[in-house]
Amino acid sequence: MISRGKSVLTAARELGVTIEAPCGGGAVCGKCKIIIDTMASVSPISEKEKRSLSAEEVANNYRLACCAEICNDVVVIVPPESMALDQVVLEAGTARYFSVNAAVKKYYVELNKPTLADCRDDFDRLKAALESRFIQLNKQITIDYTLLCGLPDILRQSDWKVTVALWQDSEIVAVESGRVAKSYGIAVDVGTTTIAAYLCELTTGMTIAQASSMNSQVGYGDDVLSRISYCVTNEDGLAKLQQLIIADINTLVRNLSEKARINPEDVLEIVLVFNTVMHHIALRINPQYIGSAPFTAVIKKAMNVKARELGIKIAASGYVHCLPLEAGFVGADNVAVLIAEQPHRQSKMSLIVDIGTNGEINFGNKAGVLSASCATGPALEGAQIKFGMRAAPGAIAKISIDPETKEPEIEVIESATDSKPCLPRARGICGSGIIDAVAELFKAGIIRNDGSFNKNIQCSRLRKGDTGKFEYVLVWAAETAIDQDITITQKDIRAVQLAKAALYAGAKILMQKKGVAQVERITLAGAFGSYIDKVNALVIGMIPDCDPANIVAVGNAAGEGAKLALCDQDKRAEAQEIAKSVQFVETAAEPGFQEEFLQAMYIPHGKDQFLHIAEILDKIPRS
Amino acid sequence: MISRGKSVLTAARELGVTIEAPCGGGAVCGKCKIIIDTMASVSPISEKEKRSLSAEEVANNYRLACCAEICNDVVVIVPPESMALDQVVLEAGTARYFSVNAAVKKYYVELNKPTLADCRDDFDRLKAALESRFIQLNKQITIDYTLLCGLPDILRQSDWKVTVALWQDSEIVAVESGRVAKSYGIAVDVGTTTIAAYLCELTTGMTIAQASSMNSQVGYGDDVLSRISYCVTNEDGLAKLQQLIIADINTLVRNLSEKARINPEDVLEIVLVFNTVMHHIALRINPQYIGSAPFTAVIKKAMNVKARELGIKIAASGYVHCLPLEAGFVGADNVAVLIAEQPHRQSKMSLIVDIGTNGEINFGNKAGVLSASCATGPALEGAQIKFGMRAAPGAIAKISIDPETKEPEIEVIESATDSKPCLPRARGICGSGIIDAVAELFKAGIIRNDGSFNKNIQCSRLRKGDTGKFEYVLVWAAETAIDQDITITQKDIRAVQLAKAALYAGAKILMQKKGVAQVERITLAGAFGSYIDKVNALVIGMIPDCDPANIVAVGNAAGEGAKLALCDQDKRAEAQEIAKSVQFVETAAEPGFQEEFLQAMYIPHGKDQFLHIAEILDKIPRS
Repeated sequence: MISRGKSVLTAARELGVTIEAPCGGGAVCGKCKIIIDTMASVSPISEKEKRSLSAEEVANNYRLACCAEICNDVVVIVPPESMALDQVVLEAGTARYFSVNAAVKKYYVELNKPTLADCRDDFDRLKAALESRFIQLNKQITIDYTLLCGLPDILRQSDWKVTVALWQDSEIVAVESGRVAKSYGIAVDVGTTTIAAYLCELTTGMTIAQASSMNSQVGYGDDVLSRISYCVTNEDGLAKLQQLIIADINTLVRNLSEKARINPEDVLEIVLVFNTVMHHIALRINPQYIGSAPFTAVIKKAMNVKARELGIKIAASGYVHCLPLEAGFVGADNVAVLIAEQPHRQSKMSLIVDIGTNGEINFGNKAGVLSASCATGPALEGAQIKFGMRAAPGAIAKISIDPETKEPEIEVIESATDSKPCLPRARGICGSGIIDAVAELFKAGIIRNDGSFNKNIQCSRLRKGDTGKFEYVLVWAAETAIDQDITITQKDIRAVQLAKAALYAGAKILMQKKGVAQVERITLAGAFGSYIDKVNALVIGMIPDCDPANIVAVGNAAGEGAKLALCDQDKRAEAQEIAKSVQFVETAAEPGFQEEFLQAMYIPHGKDQFLHIAEILDKIPRS
Repeated sequence: MISRGKSVLTAARELGVTIEAPCGGGAVCGKCKIIIDTMASVSPISEKEKRSLSAEEVANNYRLACCAEICNDVVVIVPPESMALDQVVLEAGTARYFSVNAAVKKYYVELNKPTLADCRDDFDRLKAALESRFIQLNKQITIDYTLLCGLPDILRQSDWKVTVALWQDSEIVAVESGRVAKSYGIAVDVGTTTIAAYLCELTTGMTIAQASSMNSQVGYGDDVLSRISYCVTNEDGLAKLQQLIIADINTLVRNLSEKARINPEDVLEIVLVFNTVMHHIALRINPQYIGSAPFTAVIKKAMNVKARELGIKIAASGYVHCLPLEAGFVGADNVAVLIAEQPHRQSKMSLIVDIGTNGEINFGNKAGVLSASCATGPALEGAQIKFGMRAAPGAIAKISIDPETKEPEIEVIESATDSKPCLPRARGICGSGIIDAVAELFKAGIIRNDGSFNKNIQCSRLRKGDTGKFEYVLVWAAETAIDQDITITQKDIRAVQLAKAALYAGAKILMQKKGVAQVERITLAGAFGSYIDKVNALVIGMIPDCDPANIVAVGNAAGEGAKLALCDQDKRAEAQEIAKSVQFVETAAEPGFQEEFLQAMYIPHGKDQFLHIAEILDKIPRS
């Protein structure tokens, strides 16, 4: 039973049918195409949908599952390209190949019942049943202690027919009654500001559900340094921040389990990726010494910790696998980006920029990869911006400003449950919107190349704000959902300049180290993924000059890497190798960094040429 | 506050008052006698109770604590003989040779401080410092997770000079400031009735302190079967019994630590030995299926469990090692006896009898060892005997009876704190006293070879008891600490006959299996150790005929074996081998057992000759 007014996407999710929807049902990505047999049974086609559908598709009853609302009994056909069958294909179109080889594998076995003549103990009996079927088992096979306590009852209640979950071919971590085919794991990317989690079915490697939330630690400091400071200056600071992050993870585990109609106890393993500080705090390891010279971590290698030791509520005997850290603040999240993007296996030199509160840059190819961290701050995630917000419904994700009229046009992320035919009202601006805003203000001549507002320009939206500084009104109060003018302030622009300068200067340092003047290929990774406007990223000078055709936005690559490590053990070995082989560069300590940073504060840059967008730059009115 | 309708026994347990109740509150053993001040405040006396109480006792307001239910405010007096007291466990006099090779080893290391040029993580730095000194480390060295959390602070507070405790050359389980030479571990023999614990210094293998206590589970049943029954019939039975045993172990750990002036946290490992049922209960594993055919254990192999998982309070990262179980009820305690006594390394055939609530017999030599368990019941530990008690202060441990006058002479165990010059007064009879009593009554002609009292004999101490059956007054009320005549009843003698017959018949079955008619060497092991009179053990026919010069009492061999496994890892490997190689014999299932058992009921035996004590036997007056 599906109640009327629900979108096909929502209904499908409730029924356990997975339809591709990388944008989360925001009518943005156009990936959730479905075919409706009786058009009268769903809501009329919207303008938004038409943008994602060709005339032919419209003629053939194609709709977007996130937009088409069910009014009556209806048959829905999910075409192959919309089925979330193969999670190796990201929204950006990058194919990732991996073999499904999860650390946790399930085996169904039938045991001989004990008799007076065969009075082996339960554990030996179970072990023998496994061995009789599978040769690849570790001989020193063990069973988790808490699981052992319940073993005799499970075996007898299930009449000696059970499904055994083996972790790394060596430890029994679950024994379930009867035949249980499916096996679940969760990959989590714990960012400084946001957390993204993915529930995967481990026998197919399919992503069943995804969810994200804010990192509750945000209330205790915007960036990693302020989190460290909180731990150092408050007696129970570390314990408090750890509890927050564990509670966030537990909430996501519950949400994902509800979406997939499973129990959190069915989740047998979690893979965590994070930067060095988030890693230490999540594991309740004092992060103090990462924060000051000589910036030493307590442990960098990959770790397996029982979820119960951390308070994470999945299967009682399940493990948490933490990917290895690299160096400095460059943590397991960057290692995850690397196993997802694999620059170390490619001939072309590529620059990978992972945009987060703590940005990471990688540059290189199979001859060697350099990496660095950049203190971007959270501006590019929509935080520390007057009307900033994360990429959620109500966020302005795309902006364009008419160079003549100086009037803006915005795109707001829709909620999957939005049922109004009118456009959604804006509540704030997310990261991609902020980049667009700065780029478009610059292209329209409203701000100068040093980021300051051009007060000589004729523009009804330019005004002096409360602080006496200029600001640009992006949306008038009446058109918003918050009854306030949504503005871009001078401070906002400065925050974006600082963030983009940090990324650009870092990238330049790595390029210089490699003796490369021109980048062939740029990969933009980060939570805002497909929303980002590649050309505008070039216009503000966030990344070095490059042919836009060779710039790809791949979304949350760290999350993808975490999923790969969850579904394929070989990726864990690869991660360990990469963590050691990638060369970490302390960019801020490099002699040329300060000068590079200062030049990079200009839009797009103080001296570097941006030939690939020359046409755009040349059109900008000089004042 | 005690709710109405509860038995006095239940109420006492809830209040932490330990009343003897070997039958587990089944109104069978009659040991839980208490005195009620106002009879109206408790339920009326039942027929069941009357069977366990003399007319005099009934007149004096005696009741059974397990039967009397509280109806109103009431004062209950627990007479001394019903109080559960501490037991004395003896130390063996046998010297045992072993190499000191504990699982936990300590190493002092000085680390290079981190610099910008050397920014290895703390764990790698520590690992490298260990590796630079020791070649034998496991390459996959790990660190306990909870220890890791505190690592950065320990290293810096100690100025990078620390002592590292490594477990099995592979896991770091402690990091202490500066140089710490000594290392501690505890070996515990968890018996059905008593627990013996030994604190050892692991670099020398020396025993620093020892302590013992009752197994608090005694209040919930006297033998392993009644403990299983309690777990099966009470919803939280297993959890409750486990908590009791863990609390007992924690108390012993604290006592030992106080004696040795160390902290419980200084204890880095515990080795536990126990019979199969105690093993399962202590580990919170359902013991139900050991109790009935086909008697299957849940796990028999040796286990390493973090102490914290069991609630045992030693070093936060310390392990508990459980020696492997053998088969049936023959558990890790017998494996411990075997690694202590090593019959499998000797040419001479030896018989090892470990006397406990559940007796174990081993027979063999390096060509092969057989073992069996005997349901002796707790009589030889002083339970199920009218005035029986454990080998604690006040217990009659030795008895001789003048063949002419029929007058006894007794030896009472003194308390270490006894300061009086006068002899201690008796409170009851312990196991060795019971054996002496039966042997001496037999030698004096007071009982016949079928165990019955010889009423024709002239003896002022022989009288008819409450039940109409004969009894021998060992100590007159005025000379006791309990103001009652301490007697040996017909029922007591029957209990000893059943126990000794079980041991003898078991031994005979094993001897027959090996085709051996005469034993060369007998080892008597058990808590009462050196108190036991070897000749009297022969006189009652508890063990087969043997030259008394070749009988040795070695005390608590199981405890000794546990100590060996604690101090020498090679002994753990040996234990695993023995547990597999020793052949378990289900003696009760053997065809000849019943006949052997019936003949062994006689004193010393129905037909077997006891040539080595012929001189003694010949002197016994025939009636």
